[in-house]
Amino acid sequence: MKKLAILGSTGSIGKSALKIVSLHPDKFDIEVLAAAYNIFLLFEQIRQFKPNTVVVMTEQGADQLKSMLKGDYCPEILVGEQGYIEAASNNLTDIVLLAMVGAAGLRPALAAIESKKIIALANKETLVMAGDIIMSKAKQNNVLIFPVDSEHSAIFQCLEGNSKKDFKKIFLTASGGPFRQTEKSQFKTITPGDALNHPNWDMGSKISIDSATLMNKGLEIIEAVHLFNVSYKDIEVLIHPQSIVHSMVGFKDGSIIAQLGVPDMRGAISYALSHPERLNINVDFPDFVKLRNLEFEKPDTDKFPSLDFAFEVCKKGGTLPAVMNGANEEAVNAFLGKKINFPEIFNIISKCLGEHNNIDNPDLSGIIDADAWAREKALSLI
Amino acid sequence: MKKLAILGSTGSIGKSALKIVSLHPDKFDIEVLAAAYNIFLLFEQIRQFKPNTVVVMTEQGADQLKSMLKGDYCPEILVGEQGYIEAASNNLTDIVLLAMVGAAGLRPALAAIESKKIIALANKETLVMAGDIIMSKAKQNNVLIFPVDSEHSAIFQCLEGNSKKDFKKIFLTASGGPFRQTEKSQFKTITPGDALNHPNWDMGSKISIDSATLMNKGLEIIEAVHLFNVSYKDIEVLIHPQSIVHSMVGFKDGSIIAQLGVPDMRGAISYALSHPERLNINVDFPDFVKLRNLEFEKPDTDKFPSLDFAFEVCKKGGTLPAVMNGANEEAVNAFLGKKINFPEIFNIISKCLGEHNNIDNPDLSGIIDADAWAREKALSLI
Repeated sequence: MKKLAILGSTGSIGKSALKIVSLHPDKFDIEVLAAAYNIFLLFEQIRQFKPNTVVVMTEQGADQLKSMLKGDYCPEILVGEQGYIEAASNNLTDIVLLAMVGAAGLRPALAAIESKKIIALANKETLVMAGDIIMSKAKQNNVLIFPVDSEHSAIFQCLEGNSKKDFKKIFLTASGGPFRQTEKSQFKTITPGDALNHPNWDMGSKISIDSATLMNKGLEIIEAVHLFNVSYKDIEVLIHPQSIVHSMVGFKDGSIIAQLGVPDMRGAISYALSHPERLNINVDFPDFVKLRNLEFEKPDTDKFPSLDFAFEVCKKGGTLPAVMNGANEEAVNAFLGKKINFPEIFNIISKCLGEHNNIDNPDLSGIIDADAWAREKALSLI
Repeated sequence: MKKLAILGSTGSIGKSALKIVSLHPDKFDIEVLAAAYNIFLLFEQIRQFKPNTVVVMTEQGADQLKSMLKGDYCPEILVGEQGYIEAASNNLTDIVLLAMVGAAGLRPALAAIESKKIIALANKETLVMAGDIIMSKAKQNNVLIFPVDSEHSAIFQCLEGNSKKDFKKIFLTASGGPFRQTEKSQFKTITPGDALNHPNWDMGSKISIDSATLMNKGLEIIEAVHLFNVSYKDIEVLIHPQSIVHSMVGFKDGSIIAQLGVPDMRGAISYALSHPERLNINVDFPDFVKLRNLEFEKPDTDKFPSLDFAFEVCKKGGTLPAVMNGANEEAVNAFLGKKINFPEIFNIISKCLGEHNNIDNPDLSGIIDADAWAREKALSLI
């Protein structure tokens, strides 16, 4: 029986994880659930999974939850960032699924690693901002980090049964998002509604916009560099509109191992939670005859400069990845709030990267300062 | 340093294996070379690799070789089937690459297994005829069998790092051969020259004709059943004209692991010889951007009944697989000799299967008798 903490239980990843848990009650026990603001759904989850501890973001949310739970099963309720950090290091749990959105995942991730939990990492921003620190802390604490990103889970699966010394290359696939075939001249007219309408994947709003700008793939390049300890030079991004090949790894004998599946996050989540076992999660295989074609093309970095940004910040390192991430988060928020148009997302990130005084080998506070600087700078441009 | 016997050294697989050996002289030592009739090439190989023992099929060939080698380095020379059997169990070798064509591989394979060699098996007919006997002898003798068929090497690679209990399905890919798009009504006009012209793979003549009839895939279904101890019901054949995806394995969580590469046998050969290590063999990755599409379609068993034959003999078992194989070998020879037309290959196999009195759980002599019966029957129909 694996004892789980799910931080971000009411988001897309958290909900899928709980579906898997409810299919396999003999394998998992939910000890901790954390949700920022969706108190109603958290309430339902508490009734179903009976965690020992829950976390919400505000005192008001905690009060609301308490009154909803009155007379019913009531777990310990923690509040705010400190609550998340406590929950991440809760001594009842074996595995912490980090499924919060954005930079907010960083401190809880470090807390979970320092408490020697197994990490299922859905929060890629954590590695983008502070990959060196996270990975070296994980190594120090002998902590396993399982990726919960379909591409990185694919890469992880492709590397299983192979030796790192035979590794040569990662082929990181990208759907290309909803605007793969849209003319660049039309980008100004893109609405948040258009951008949220991903062709293959059903995801949260931040990651859906990141997919539309290809920044999601940019973040994934940096994530892969840290998770698999490879050079950005050994990563090639391939546009693959069907999202069936989740990524591939090439070895020195010319052999490529690929992981495929329908676009459904339950695969990556269940693999991270149940490794080395695989669970039956009622996910069918793709129907290759019906699909007929798996297409591949080169990404268009003129239309989508995010990949260039990502390779540039990989090359230069320091605080630049955190700046790219922070500027992107603010720009995406502004786009979702209809304060800027779609191409301005790229402009804002580009300006922040251009004006940042990069710091080599930053410590955690250096990274957090760079993130704050980038957000302030981005907001000043909005 | 791995010490190798290569049985079938002048064939397509044997030559590729020696290319790999000559790239990695620090890893391999050639102890035994066996070639049926190509004395001139064998002579060159002896001068280059200096084996301790060689085998040829006839006394005449042995005499010719001796006179060619006069005054030069001269290994022990063995002759005929008994020579192959001795060579397969030569006590200087660690690994025996079985790369002869057709049913002739059976007895040497058993000899190698009984001598506890590691087996690199390119001769699929051996498993088709006597898979139960071969695999149970391998188990008894604690012998590893590495497949040297691109599809089975792919499946082997996909299973590495996974647990057999999570296995659900094999997707066995097939190029579809040169007549995938030829109308059935045109099949009568196909010449051996047309059939030998495989779109992707450069192979020997028997396997090229088997690819054109899809019997190669039929044999591979049976081979996979034995090698991986799976049911034929868990194997789906997919036509994949580009021959880039060499095969795939589906697991119970809906995840599929695939192995890809350019169509070049060196990948499968080197993997079998160097496992668990991978070697640099100067084989490039496929260029996915240039390829653009990987296509998949359902095989047309009306045009190519070989897959139906194979599934039928898998289901019924006994001596039928050996009959299918023997009848096919004779029919392919007759087609290559222009004695029958292309569709008659199917008719001959079908008649042999229909008229055979199947024997359950045959021993080796039962299998060899069935093979002989099938050949005689096939010849009577030609």
